[in-house]
Amino acid sequence: MIPQTSLIKLRSIVGGENFLDSAEDKIAYSYDGTPLFQQLPDAILIPRSTDQISQILRLANEEGFGVVPRGSGSGLSGGSIPVENSVVLLVNHWNRILEIDQNNLTIWVEAGAITGQVHSAVEALGLMYPPDPGSSTICTIGGNVAENAGGLRGLKYGVTRNYVLGLEVVLPSGEVVLTGGKSVKDVAGYSLKDILIGSEGTLGITTKVLLRLIPKPDTSRTMLALYDKLSDAAETVSDIIGSKITPAALEFLDNTTIRCVEEYAHLGLPTSVESLLLIEVDGRVSVVEEDAAKIVQLCRQHHALDVTLAANEEEAVRLRSARKGALAALARVRPTTILEDATVPRSEVAPMLEQINRISKSHNLTFGTFGHAGDGNLHPTCLTDERDSEEIHRAEMAFEEIFSEAIRLGGTITGEHGIGLSKKKFLKTMVGEPALEMMRKIKQTIDPNGVLNPGKIFTLRPRCEGPLPTNREQIKKLADLGAFT
Amino acid sequence: MIPQTSLIKLRSIVGGENFLDSAEDKIAYSYDGTPLFQQLPDAILIPRSTDQISQILRLANEEGFGVVPRGSGSGLSGGSIPVENSVVLLVNHWNRILEIDQNNLTIWVEAGAITGQVHSAVEALGLMYPPDPGSSTICTIGGNVAENAGGLRGLKYGVTRNYVLGLEVVLPSGEVVLTGGKSVKDVAGYSLKDILIGSEGTLGITTKVLLRLIPKPDTSRTMLALYDKLSDAAETVSDIIGSKITPAALEFLDNTTIRCVEEYAHLGLPTSVESLLLIEVDGRVSVVEEDAAKIVQLCRQHHALDVTLAANEEEAVRLRSARKGALAALARVRPTTILEDATVPRSEVAPMLEQINRISKSHNLTFGTFGHAGDGNLHPTCLTDERDSEEIHRAEMAFEEIFSEAIRLGGTITGEHGIGLSKKKFLKTMVGEPALEMMRKIKQTIDPNGVLNPGKIFTLRPRCEGPLPTNREQIKKLADLGAFT
Repeated sequence: MIPQTSLIKLRSIVGGENFLDSAEDKIAYSYDGTPLFQQLPDAILIPRSTDQISQILRLANEEGFGVVPRGSGSGLSGGSIPVENSVVLLVNHWNRILEIDQNNLTIWVEAGAITGQVHSAVEALGLMYPPDPGSSTICTIGGNVAENAGGLRGLKYGVTRNYVLGLEVVLPSGEVVLTGGKSVKDVAGYSLKDILIGSEGTLGITTKVLLRLIPKPDTSRTMLALYDKLSDAAETVSDIIGSKITPAALEFLDNTTIRCVEEYAHLGLPTSVESLLLIEVDGRVSVVEEDAAKIVQLCRQHHALDVTLAANEEEAVRLRSARKGALAALARVRPTTILEDATVPRSEVAPMLEQINRISKSHNLTFGTFGHAGDGNLHPTCLTDERDSEEIHRAEMAFEEIFSEAIRLGGTITGEHGIGLSKKKFLKTMVGEPALEMMRKIKQTIDPNGVLNPGKIFTLRPRCEGPLPTNREQIKKLADLGAFT
Repeated sequence: MIPQTSLIKLRSIVGGENFLDSAEDKIAYSYDGTPLFQQLPDAILIPRSTDQISQILRLANEEGFGVVPRGSGSGLSGGSIPVENSVVLLVNHWNRILEIDQNNLTIWVEAGAITGQVHSAVEALGLMYPPDPGSSTICTIGGNVAENAGGLRGLKYGVTRNYVLGLEVVLPSGEVVLTGGKSVKDVAGYSLKDILIGSEGTLGITTKVLLRLIPKPDTSRTMLALYDKLSDAAETVSDIIGSKITPAALEFLDNTTIRCVEEYAHLGLPTSVESLLLIEVDGRVSVVEEDAAKIVQLCRQHHALDVTLAANEEEAVRLRSARKGALAALARVRPTTILEDATVPRSEVAPMLEQINRISKSHNLTFGTFGHAGDGNLHPTCLTDERDSEEIHRAEMAFEEIFSEAIRLGGTITGEHGIGLSKKKFLKTMVGEPALEMMRKIKQTIDPNGVLNPGKIFTLRPRCEGPLPTNREQIKKLADLGAFT
């Protein structure tokens, strides 16, 4: 617990109305989008200026507590979950768009700006901000930067890193750094922004972000293809890329996911098919028509049972809903949904899917797998129940095997969610000791007292070893005492 | 000087045939593509394995000398120039293409592979490696990674960083790290490759590089437009981008450069025009034709005196030669050519060019300016004579003012050449003390003994303060002694 004397100082930095420490508030900020993790913070701070963040971090260094930055809390690796002896620092109230520069195709936003709002704002001007994580309606740009978020359009347009031109960041020391700028080429010293992007809030608290925009494609076409055999779908993907077409989306659903989606949304999908591809091409009209026709032809060549080419945007929305609803549909089946992001080179998608099925069966678990077939970024999703510790244990073992397979196939344990709390156990196997040591050294030199988002990425504390953490019991105790009523 | 005992150990690590220490060899490796800098190394090493590099670096840590990695030595910020008490470590003999993976659109190359050879190899398969620094016929991929090299195609396709998927690197400790891989999405821990890219050989020696490829565009069209007024050319650039067209190249030449090119290459360019734009669009046939027609129209709207649209590749090559020959043409005029890369946001290109002209005149110097108008990456080039120390002093003062203007306009002191030796003086003004301190800390923690490319980026030693360095005298002394005859 942070000593009361420190909490009083924190309250005086942000002001009483921006300092939350009721039991209800602590519970609300004790978890994020990641299942199985929870920890009460000692307080929640809503800073009103960059200078207040600096003061908070200086105090953290002096008095030895942790500061956990948080946007919308939609992360899937536990990156914004408090650890013991820490406060949560909110940035999601800073959600303004500060400037759209149409000459230089850039946008300055506050870190708490919602990704989807950025999309809308720039699309209204005929521009596009391509990264589109699945949580884009709620997630923040600051969180996207912290996790180097990906999304559906990664294959053609890349990930968050490819669009960050500049950052205003408060370093763990409390110093404020403005790194990068509107010049798309800039090699003045080490690229601090590239060190900070994807550092999961462990090296700095991002307060403002300068993003690069591109012209919005004139049009798009959406297709949906159904397959009896997984290998046919995989070969279609290979052949599309081999034909020099780079779709804006090239998404995959397996049979379990298709069945759940159909049960949930009644889209008329045949529940017997093995897999489904959702494909979208965008760009100039002439090229899009040409590419769409070619893709339909390739799907048929590879024995698609059915290929639908949306005739208009309404139909496209309907086709997309099969993919967009995948996680929500899976999440209805069992109380706990563990969504992972094992990622492999595109050529290894089919072998990886076979391994996921094998592993799932061998542990007697239900997995639905969907994801970004075009860039090999899969989402094996375990449908389970966190109250069944034995089944959770099996799920953990299954994921461990899945990550090993991803590494064996030349892939990675995380394509877009980050390490956070949930994958610390696997990081050393993934990157090797010398690389891990280099990361530790960077953390140590930038944040010598470990005040910023402590316990993330590095310290070993696997998701499931032994019983659930005691903090859950604490919460239950508080509930039993009627603290939340 | 490195003690003889250390040199003997180095010789035994690489073998006598891979250890060069004759006066001729030392002179050959005493300079690179950057004017006004020169320093003799104590020896030149040609390692034959990654393990030998590890041994060399371990010895450097134990015995306290510097190791300067070098590819082709075509850099323009002095990054591969030896400093006192250092050896040059060559990697340019490792120039093989190791694998082209057409399923995943990747290529593994050794660090010494020539960029132009990578272009040819992948283009033969219908693929493309977009980064194309001006020195592509001689520069190495390892050097491109060290400097995060840009080039003509930056506006549409980005820079080297956007294409590096993985690196094999020997860290200053001698440990070998393989970071990244064929997964285009990978967020497992800090992105070490992104810390290493652009670190100018100060954090690791790259031995192998995994690059991302894209499908080669089907076709391209090249245009050349001449203007009486700089502002008309600048407005054309703005309007092209405003029309949602992203050219593969959007290059600019000023009057001085045009005159030098015409004198050199006799292309029939009118030497009275104020500026020239070379524009290239690529992609699918239908789109390229449409875009080219639109661009020609925009050039005319903005009072271009003449617009030529190349009818075929032969004509395109002729038009391109105006831009490709710019540096060679300028370099003929005076004995010393100082080529810089002050870069500004695209909207500030015209104001920046005006400032360069003003500064050049006020110091009574001859500048030719050309560069990448589309991404604001300009090359103000001073035509001077290094034997005239008074004029060189004025040139230094002029560049100092030019860099200040670039910073004032929201730009950077270096868009694609790096800091190296030549811009250390300006880095603090550019990034500010907290950012510089963060860079220093990273260098210090990864390379605590400062063995790797010492004296680059950080230590203050401006290009021109007082007399030329004594090593030039050393060289002259050696020459006088008949050492090179």
